[in-house]
Order: sequence, then structure tokens, then C-alpha cells
Amino acid sequence: MPAPSLIFISRDDRYPRWHPALEAALPGIEVRCWPDGEEPRAGITYAIVWHPPHGVLARFPGLKAIFSVGAGVDHIFADPELPQHVPVVRLVDETLTGQMSEYVVLHVLRHHRRQPEYDAQQTDRVWRVLPCPPAADRRIGILGLGVLGLDAARKLKALGFSVAGWSRSKKDEPGIECYSGREELPAFLASCDIAVCLLPRTPETRGLLDAQMLAHLPWGAALINAARGGLVDEEALLAALENGRIGGATLDVFAAEPLPQDHLFWRHPRVTITPHIAAITNPASAARIIAANIERIEAGQTPLHIASRDRLY
Amino acid sequence: MPAPSLIFISRDDRYPRWHPALEAALPGIEVRCWPDGEEPRAGITYAIVWHPPHGVLARFPGLKAIFSVGAGVDHIFADPELPQHVPVVRLVDETLTGQMSEYVVLHVLRHHRRQPEYDAQQTDRVWRVLPCPPAADRRIGILGLGVLGLDAARKLKALGFSVAGWSRSKKDEPGIECYSGREELPAFLASCDIAVCLLPRTPETRGLLDAQMLAHLPWGAALINAARGGLVDEEALLAALENGRIGGATLDVFAAEPLPQDHLFWRHPRVTITPHIAAITNPASAARIIAANIERIEAGQTPLHIASRDRLY
Repeated sequence: MPAPSLIFISRDDRYPRWHPALEAALPGIEVRCWPDGEEPRAGITYAIVWHPPHGVLARFPGLKAIFSVGAGVDHIFADPELPQHVPVVRLVDETLTGQMSEYVVLHVLRHHRRQPEYDAQQTDRVWRVLPCPPAADRRIGILGLGVLGLDAARKLKALGFSVAGWSRSKKDEPGIECYSGREELPAFLASCDIAVCLLPRTPETRGLLDAQMLAHLPWGAALINAARGGLVDEEALLAALENGRIGGATLDVFAAEPLPQDHLFWRHPRVTITPHIAAITNPASAARIIAANIERIEAGQTPLHIASRDRLY
Repeated sequence: MPAPSLIFISRDDRYPRWHPALEAALPGIEVRCWPDGEEPRAGITYAIVWHPPHGVLARFPGLKAIFSVGAGVDHIFADPELPQHVPVVRLVDETLTGQMSEYVVLHVLRHHRRQPEYDAQQTDRVWRVLPCPPAADRRIGILGLGVLGLDAARKLKALGFSVAGWSRSKKDEPGIECYSGREELPAFLASCDIAVCLLPRTPETRGLLDAQMLAHLPWGAALINAARGGLVDEEALLAALENGRIGGATLDVFAAEPLPQDHLFWRHPRVTITPHIAAITNPASAARIIAANIERIEAGQTPLHIASRDRLY
């Protein structure tokens, strides 16, 4: 059996930050970067990827696993020539989970405590108290109850909020009201004063929050999207902000990134934009997790956190 | 023994919000509002007060307890004619504690995740990732480890932050590095990336965070004051913001409130102002807590949460 070797494939220039982390975590493995390190293709056994150009992964017949640099694998399954029998592995990293929960807790509290309005009052030098309900009366709804959604839900619950969650299949979590399936989505949305989207992007979830679904939210609800841009219909969101259905939105992800300069979101007074920073992979930590998974495979075990070919996440 | 009766004394117009709450929580007790309900003075056994005008409390010789409408009692001890042998009682209300922790967690996360800088980037339509350390590497320091400080410290710890605390007397709290006494204050401040002031205002703490003490903070530290304006020297804080010692401040309390229109804080790009809203007493909940304490006194027991005449909190 040839020695394992690894190729890093990214559409952007993140390799210089990953290279030392991979060298440190995988001392016995040759590490290359696509496209320069592509040959000899047959000898390459692992790929770590971020938005791999379509068709590239198919050139490596010896792959034993494809690792995503992030929690999402939609950028891998988007490749129509993706090899069918190679496991695609999500990154499950508690530092990534912790970061996402920080972002969610920050922006839920920011809407709950009306900080954007206090910011505006400060600009006008206005000293005025804005009423705010107790946390127990503020209903937070988390779309997606995977590793990220459950961690955020538990941390919000610990702050005293009333927390519900919605997921594809029914979950059971103490203290969290759990909804599931497309048929329960309207009732779930109707219960959200603040809705937080943490769903994976799959063919099922693409455009899930469209005009019809957003109309189920209570008047004046807040929406936080820290998952993927494709999940929320941006035109429908703008319309819902205009008619008052949605009182405020915090968006970390967009249909096109970076958000185009002429996009209406930039200057919308009730939209907060962050540049896809809710949870940023730490190469050192991620390389250690990938190295441990490679060790499992080399020992004949199944890697952890394989994405489902059926569910595509 | 005459039936208990109660007078509400406030420098502002908050009584209309308290009246129904007091009637509901204290059905057997006559409730009056100062100054109209002042006579007959001798028959009044309890006072609930907010910034009582000096000398007013001394007019009621039958008082068994003086209740603060908030967690702080500095506004009561400020009265030079305060009756010496009547217990002064702080409000300890878990809804108030929860609100304060919401505020602290919100503003710690806001500084930690650099949200004010992202807000500024949005104004300029700039899409740029700003580096942020893991929570475990961000050192949060809480000044004051009473009911409010401990709750905030525990909730920040649960989010993964490195948390230390400073208090007058040594505290022992698992997972929180505890400093105490004036002599340990410089070392404590030197360890704070984000310092949160939750101290009571007493003669000992007045002006505690002056130019000399602020200079112990690491360069670029953030300061959050949700306690009392008198604890931080505002001129020294402005100077520390100018020289870069303090990278950002969130202030809920001020030496003069409402903050005067011409105060430099209003327009300072690195100061966030909120109008004393970190923890706002809920009259319904507070009235129930005060009623339970009155019941204790009427049954011959000592009321809970008596402020110390020595420490003045």
C-alpha cells in the first residue's frame, strides 16, 4: 500500500494558512496544493477542499476520503462529477461550534435588547428607554438542530429564552420545543420572535425561506441567517422588511459573496451585514481533527462525520 | 400593633407603574405615594424608594424597613439624615439579575466579535474579515462578584471565555480566577481584555477607575460600565480612549443622567451609549419580592438582603 498523500483544493488563496497546520498535524503524509501539486494523481489518497472546481476531484482515482474545510459540504456536492464512492466528510470542530454560538447569542441578544435602535438613538443624542420583554417571553426559533443548532439552542436556553427548533427529522431535546418536517414549518415560524437559520444547504433547503414561508413569521420578527445565502430568498426578505413583516435582519451569508457593492442590503437601515464570519475554521484545530480521521481510515475504521449521499449534508 | 402601611418615595414619576403591582402583591396593606400620602407619618411602617429627597425618610418614625427599587442602595445612603436603625434592603430579583447578564453577555460578545467595526464597515460597504481570537483566549474581568457579577461571570464562562473577577473581599468560585482588595486591583486590570464594572457605588468605589487604574488595562482593552456612573472617572476614560489604552467602551451609566446633550461621549466613535437600561426593575416581580420580605418582618423574622451600614451596599 502506498504511503498516504494529501491534496488541498480551494477556489481561494487560503492554503498558506493551512500549510503549516497540515505539516504539523500530519507529519507522515506528503501534503500538496492544487493545481501545482496535482501529479501524480493516482498516488493521492486524501483531499481537503473548499469549493473545488467541478471535475477536479474526479481526476484522483485513489481518493479514500474528501474532507470539507467547514461544517457545510454543499460546495462539494455541487460538483456534478463528484466521485460517487468516496466518503465526503464534514468538519465537526468544537471551536467552530463555539464560534457559531457566540455569533448567534450576540445577534439574538442584539435584537432582543434592541441595540440597533439604541445605536440609532445615540446618533441622534436621544436618551430614551425602549421597552423589552423578559427573555422567557421572547421566543427564539432555531432552524436546524444539528451540532451547531443544538449548541446555540442550549446556550440561549441557559440565558432564559424560550427556545424552539425545527429540523428535517424529529429531534428530542429537553427544554426545547421541537418541530420537524415541511408540514410543521409554518407553525414553527409563527412561533418565532427571532428566527435563526443554521440549516445545511441542500436541494431540499435551497430557497426554503421564500415569500410564502417568511409570511408565517409574526409581524416585526427578526431573522438571523448564519448558514448559507441560498436558504433565504433575498428579494422576498427585502419585501418583508419593507412591509414590516420582518423588523430586522442580521445576515452573515448571501446568494453572492462578497455581497455586491450595489446590493440594497448594504444601506438598509434594518439590515446588519457581516462578511461570512460567524464561524471561521481555525486551520490548526481543523488539521488535527482531519489528521485523527485519516488515522481512523488508515487503521481500517470508518471516518467520523461522513455526509449522507441521500440528504446531501 | 397598627396595620402595616407603605409609602412610595421617588424623585421621578414611576409610581403609576408601581401602584397596580403593589396593590396586587400587598392586598392587606395601605399603599401611599409621597408627597401627597405623607400624613399621618407615624403610621407608615415601610418605604419603597428611588433617590429619596434628603431628609424625607427621617420624617417617618415608625419605619420597619426601607426597600430600594433596584439592586443599588447608594441613592439611599446618600441621605445624610437617613434613620440609623432602620434596615435598608436591596432588591435581589432574578429577573433583574438575568437582564443584567443579558446586557453583559451582549456587550462582551459585541466587543469580542468586533461588531462595532463591522457596523462601520457596513456603512462603507466594506467586506473584510477581522481576526478574532478564540473565546478561551479572551480574558474577561468582572469588577464586583455579588449576585449580578457572579451570574454574569458564570454565563460568560459557559460561552468559553476566560473569566476573572475582582471583589472587595475574596470570593471562591470554580473556574473563575478571583482577585480581591485594592492591592490586587492593578494585577486584575492588567489581565482584562474586556473589563466589566458591576460594583456597587460606595465611598470606597467612587472614582475607583481613575486615570491611574485605567492605565493598568492592556492596550486596546474594552470597558463596559453597567453599574454606576460615579465609579469611572469620565475625563480619564476619554483620555484613555484618545491615547488608545482603551479601544472601546460601552456605557449604560454616567456621572449625570440623562447624559448631557453636549457630552463628548455621544459622538465618540468608540463609545456605545445606552440610557441606563442594563437592568430595569419590573414592578410586578419586585413588588412580590418586597411583599415576601414584609411578610417575614411582620412574622418577626429578619428581612433578606439587608445592606450593610459598614460597607454601604
